[in-house]
Amino acid sequence: MVAVGTQCQAELIAVGSEILLGQINNSHAQVISAELAKYGLYVYHHGAVGDNEQRIRRAFETASQRSNVVIVTGGLGPTADDLTKEALASFLDRKLVLSEEALHHLMQYFAGRQRQMPEENRKQAYCIEGGELIPNENGTAPGQYIFDRNVHFFLLPGPPLEMRPMLRNYVLPRLIEVFGGQQALISRVLHFCGIGESDVDEQIQDLTAGQNPTVAPLAGEGEMLLRITATADSESSARAKIAPVEEELRRRFGSYLYGVDDDTLPSVVGRRLAERQHTLSVAESCTGGLLASMLTDVPGSSAYFMGGVVAYDNRIKESLLDVPSDVLATEGAVSEATARALAEGVRRRLSTTYGIGVTGIAGPGGGTPEKPVGLVYVAVADGRQTQVYRLQYRVSRAQVRLRTCKQALWRLLGIME
Amino acid sequence: MVAVGTQCQAELIAVGSEILLGQINNSHAQVISAELAKYGLYVYHHGAVGDNEQRIRRAFETASQRSNVVIVTGGLGPTADDLTKEALASFLDRKLVLSEEALHHLMQYFAGRQRQMPEENRKQAYCIEGGELIPNENGTAPGQYIFDRNVHFFLLPGPPLEMRPMLRNYVLPRLIEVFGGQQALISRVLHFCGIGESDVDEQIQDLTAGQNPTVAPLAGEGEMLLRITATADSESSARAKIAPVEEELRRRFGSYLYGVDDDTLPSVVGRRLAERQHTLSVAESCTGGLLASMLTDVPGSSAYFMGGVVAYDNRIKESLLDVPSDVLATEGAVSEATARALAEGVRRRLSTTYGIGVTGIAGPGGGTPEKPVGLVYVAVADGRQTQVYRLQYRVSRAQVRLRTCKQALWRLLGIME
Repeated sequence: MVAVGTQCQAELIAVGSEILLGQINNSHAQVISAELAKYGLYVYHHGAVGDNEQRIRRAFETASQRSNVVIVTGGLGPTADDLTKEALASFLDRKLVLSEEALHHLMQYFAGRQRQMPEENRKQAYCIEGGELIPNENGTAPGQYIFDRNVHFFLLPGPPLEMRPMLRNYVLPRLIEVFGGQQALISRVLHFCGIGESDVDEQIQDLTAGQNPTVAPLAGEGEMLLRITATADSESSARAKIAPVEEELRRRFGSYLYGVDDDTLPSVVGRRLAERQHTLSVAESCTGGLLASMLTDVPGSSAYFMGGVVAYDNRIKESLLDVPSDVLATEGAVSEATARALAEGVRRRLSTTYGIGVTGIAGPGGGTPEKPVGLVYVAVADGRQTQVYRLQYRVSRAQVRLRTCKQALWRLLGIME
Repeated sequence: MVAVGTQCQAELIAVGSEILLGQINNSHAQVISAELAKYGLYVYHHGAVGDNEQRIRRAFETASQRSNVVIVTGGLGPTADDLTKEALASFLDRKLVLSEEALHHLMQYFAGRQRQMPEENRKQAYCIEGGELIPNENGTAPGQYIFDRNVHFFLLPGPPLEMRPMLRNYVLPRLIEVFGGQQALISRVLHFCGIGESDVDEQIQDLTAGQNPTVAPLAGEGEMLLRITATADSESSARAKIAPVEEELRRRFGSYLYGVDDDTLPSVVGRRLAERQHTLSVAESCTGGLLASMLTDVPGSSAYFMGGVVAYDNRIKESLLDVPSDVLATEGAVSEATARALAEGVRRRLSTTYGIGVTGIAGPGGGTPEKPVGLVYVAVADGRQTQVYRLQYRVSRAQVRLRTCKQALWRLLGIME
């Protein structure tokens, strides 16, 4: 084992030619890094290398010179292209030996699926001599752990549903055991809507200059995120460092803040509606169902979201939502009056506390000099009054749609205050 | 310049501590790899390193020993944390010199936004002596190119909207110029629906054994993708190698094939509806607007998609879609009869050629022993008849929703045959 107090210096290596060909994204790097960061376990390098034994072996050589933890994903499958185990055994000058335990797991795995184990899968029962098996409950390839050359090597399979539980159940506990008592690294994310990133940036330069906690803006589509990150001896001390900075940000931008950490606009809207036993319906033109879809993405949304109408065609605006035909004729489908009629119409027809109406030109076609692409009207009706907001975007179709939905939810939160 | 016939051996390095903390995904690696692969330019290593001058420098050292092209993303910003240029200058033992051209670009950039250039941005006008500027039309940081130690170094900014045009307009043409005459690597992706990956796998083992072209299954949510990849002297020869394999796959699985390359189920459905001047409407319960949203994601969809009703609440199924109350009472909201009534109701109310009805239990709550989570009915009505399909999923809420939408579109394609 490494000396007490040694810092974790982890390195992640993904194995697979499909990654280097750009056919798949190496999402493991982010997932593993984020999990380790939660425990103050630092990752200093990410790498990816193809299905080539020599190059994999060299990646291990380089890694073992600069890192004391090497977590490898991929290349544990049954085919001749799967070479991770072989490359590590060769680098460490160790044999691969048949593990009865691994063979038993494989047999059971296939028996549970009413299949005979294909002969090629036998390869997966071989383990690096002197290493440990990492159980894989969701697939055939067992993982491997070995401590050698002062490096903790973890080999994990590539499929995310297999890799992730093995990371949480085996790798993290082992690392915490080895490097325990490290500093905790805690982040808190504040979510804002209705204010631009550049406006915020200019007003937080005193805070972003700090080192612990750090304050960093994160890119968000149609919203603005600030991440506060602190390190300390313990989680509670890290949180205590975050608190005054969060308070200061709330003091400066509180009226734009809608949530923290994993909150989303649909989840916050949903929580507030549910608490008050209020209900919502939506009438969408340019967002074409996206707003309803975002709301119903949230489990349990049937408690407060009654439904919606996607009124792409004008006749549907009339027949299902009672938008007056003269409003459509004189003001047009993309107008303040139509947005208002959509919100009021859906609210009345679906008998809900609130109704949202959205109409606009998402593009790329359909714009005119008077009503350019990106022009959107959002209306929120609560039975007493209807607020209508005019928005003008200069972004892609997908972005217009998404930003419009977020604006609509943000405006609803404002009305519900 | 490298010798004629030298192979491109590229390496990608992403710079940024936020990548190593798992706060963002290094999506550049995939994008750049895929672009290079199109031209037979091979990438052998991906790496990521934090905002630390010494570690960035060492990454350049390692890379220059094994690669002849190094493409670096990130670390070109105006702050003290942005160190990519400094690290490369130090590694190459070159000075950073003020570029009047870069300074002019910066001034213009800010002037175009009615702002004075902040003093800290002046840092971005410094370039590695002897290098070339790579113009950045979408941001402040110019890129840099320098050929030294027999390595082509490209430094690109981190924001994707800035990086990607610079990759296409400068890096790729330069690499093709240097390594021109390489083999073309061409891929063709076939999209299938209605057939499981394991069923396909078993029937294509003769094809996946080939080396050129290769055939590889790709993971798809609710659909199945096969990628055929060939290398040859020219794009047309590569395509000629792909053609017979594609033909054979069409012969075996043609009835499940719905599209190729960038096709999606909503785009294929849309194209077919538009060609025939037919129209579509949808009535959604468990998918909550996702189906409408997927359809309207396609530019120009207003030509054939009239609209939809998201009938989360049963009263809306009755009031807007004429689902008989006794069907809801006796059969329940999740039933074949309700799916049928939804499809027929929305088709009639919205006067469209086709109507789709979807009802089910997306979970995680709401299941019973008779109607478990993941039970879904999809109905397609065309005025003469209504087909109803019963589906049973054992996946997450988000997956149930997405797979249901794809099944619905796939079934519609079948009816339209």
